[in-house]
Amino acid sequence: MKVRDIGEFGLIERLSRGVPGGPGLVRGIGDDAAILEATPGAQWLATADMLLESVHFDLSFTTPEQLGRRALVANLSDIAAMGGRARFALVSLGLETDTDLEIVDGFYRGFTEEASRWGVILIGGDTIRSPKGMIIAVTVLGEVEPGCAVRRDGARPGDLLLVTGDLGGSAAGLAALLSEPSALSGLDARHVQEVKARHLAPEPRLREAEIIAAAGATSMIDVSDGLANEANHLARESGVSMVIDAESIPISEATRAIAEALAHDPLDWALNGGEDYELLFTAPPERVDALADTVRTQTGTSVEIIGRVERGRGCRLDKDGVRSVLSLSAYDHFV
Amino acid sequence: MKVRDIGEFGLIERLSRGVPGGPGLVRGIGDDAAILEATPGAQWLATADMLLESVHFDLSFTTPEQLGRRALVANLSDIAAMGGRARFALVSLGLETDTDLEIVDGFYRGFTEEASRWGVILIGGDTIRSPKGMIIAVTVLGEVEPGCAVRRDGARPGDLLLVTGDLGGSAAGLAALLSEPSALSGLDARHVQEVKARHLAPEPRLREAEIIAAAGATSMIDVSDGLANEANHLARESGVSMVIDAESIPISEATRAIAEALAHDPLDWALNGGEDYELLFTAPPERVDALADTVRTQTGTSVEIIGRVERGRGCRLDKDGVRSVLSLSAYDHFV
Repeated sequence: MKVRDIGEFGLIERLSRGVPGGPGLVRGIGDDAAILEATPGAQWLATADMLLESVHFDLSFTTPEQLGRRALVANLSDIAAMGGRARFALVSLGLETDTDLEIVDGFYRGFTEEASRWGVILIGGDTIRSPKGMIIAVTVLGEVEPGCAVRRDGARPGDLLLVTGDLGGSAAGLAALLSEPSALSGLDARHVQEVKARHLAPEPRLREAEIIAAAGATSMIDVSDGLANEANHLARESGVSMVIDAESIPISEATRAIAEALAHDPLDWALNGGEDYELLFTAPPERVDALADTVRTQTGTSVEIIGRVERGRGCRLDKDGVRSVLSLSAYDHFV
Repeated sequence: MKVRDIGEFGLIERLSRGVPGGPGLVRGIGDDAAILEATPGAQWLATADMLLESVHFDLSFTTPEQLGRRALVANLSDIAAMGGRARFALVSLGLETDTDLEIVDGFYRGFTEEASRWGVILIGGDTIRSPKGMIIAVTVLGEVEPGCAVRRDGARPGDLLLVTGDLGGSAAGLAALLSEPSALSGLDARHVQEVKARHLAPEPRLREAEIIAAAGATSMIDVSDGLANEANHLARESGVSMVIDAESIPISEATRAIAEALAHDPLDWALNGGEDYELLFTAPPERVDALADTVRTQTGTSVEIIGRVERGRGCRLDKDGVRSVLSLSAYDHFV
């Protein structure tokens, strides 16, 4: 069955049927606007993202469920990067009239399953006809204790620069998905599976972020556009300089194996790849060991020191004894 | 200059430069998520809408400023329909790389000017490349006193059904914009101007809504998809029936004149036209006169009784002594 077979009202009814409520929700889907109650004293966080078919995702190798999860994870990661707790989501969808209902159902199933993992409630959105390709716009609202949000502008000279997990895995996964199978034939199948999953089913670092924020991180950002861009954002917003040690950047064995097979520099994926959704943050040196230990113990996620904050402007990369300017990634959505 | 000439980061910097802050905003554009503070004790309202070029708007007769206003008004109208106060907005834009920067600047100028009229602060969003056509996704957050939101499910048998302003004007304006000039040549130019403005520069009824909510309206919805659809939504959500008197539906002289010139039934525009952004609501009979007087006196906007709420289901239209079922509009975005 296609979207046109049930029409707009059929679609809205179908979508709103299975949506669970939860704490803080007074009135959800079905009115002009949702009605919400905040945790007393909390500040709100709000973030929005847009994804387009053929620009940001490809339904030929992404399942609708994975797409639903990813569309939400991008926003959850933004809430994580503030040290907040995600609470509510709105999703607006543009669909072609001959889109299979299975795709729509799968998208919402993935979206709501990922949402319920984090206690997030779907509260509204919009559904419109798209002449060509699927369009997804997600807004997520979160909460944080007043004054406890970790912003981009708090890094201070003397702080260390740290990152959760490892980088470049999602870009390696995308490259693997786009490769001829023969190009990967000599590889350990687990490595190929690992990087594909990194791209198709990324994990938002909400629990890690909460620990990092509580441990006194001075600034934080999520790595959605590669380390080079995100480090530059932190440096600019904080009015400081960052020096990164290339050898310390965590890159997984799987990412390195895919890079070797495809003759790509794994460091490029770490610096300029997209959608890793790891957390890049700064903290005073005396807090770093305890912080990293707590994150590892409580979540199983590694935390590595990859550089330090200095006076000045911009970012530099130390590699093989050579220091170079680490500029914003060459990749630009509009160029 | 085109979007590609300044790139993604240039665009974000350009957009965030002129954006004013305001009460309740702790941190706006420039971080992973905005940080907000609610008015103590208030409930939040949240709504989202998506607009696509060639489906919902046409830049050949809509200026970028008008488009920016309209994109926001659709959401402001949803907050109004709950009796709330609009506070914050997020806007995500998909732009072609060769979009003129004048269009982007005009859009944001219109958006932020309309926002500042209502004390609404732009707090974030996303900017991405669209392969074809402009894509706009807006989320608006509002506030309401706890328990005071006017929902769609409160209409009770015995209530009267009322509407602000007049209906069908936006559809008449769109028809006028799409007509050959010769088809309108015999008309009063003020009538043509009036309906075009109704389509291109609609007014959200936020002040009217606040008065209506305070006066004890039992249910309310904004008329974005025509009276037939909206009356059916109220009836279904409230579990009641509505009977509408066709003669009482307010249709302006200008709308009637355009309809006559284009050989269209003006009642069809009122029942099935889009984007009027008037308020349709129910109230107990004893409150109606004072309510309508207060709205007229304080805002200049008329309020008319167009029907009544009965036991049962669905909506009926009394016209020329004949009662017919008023079903959901034949127009469906997906069919």
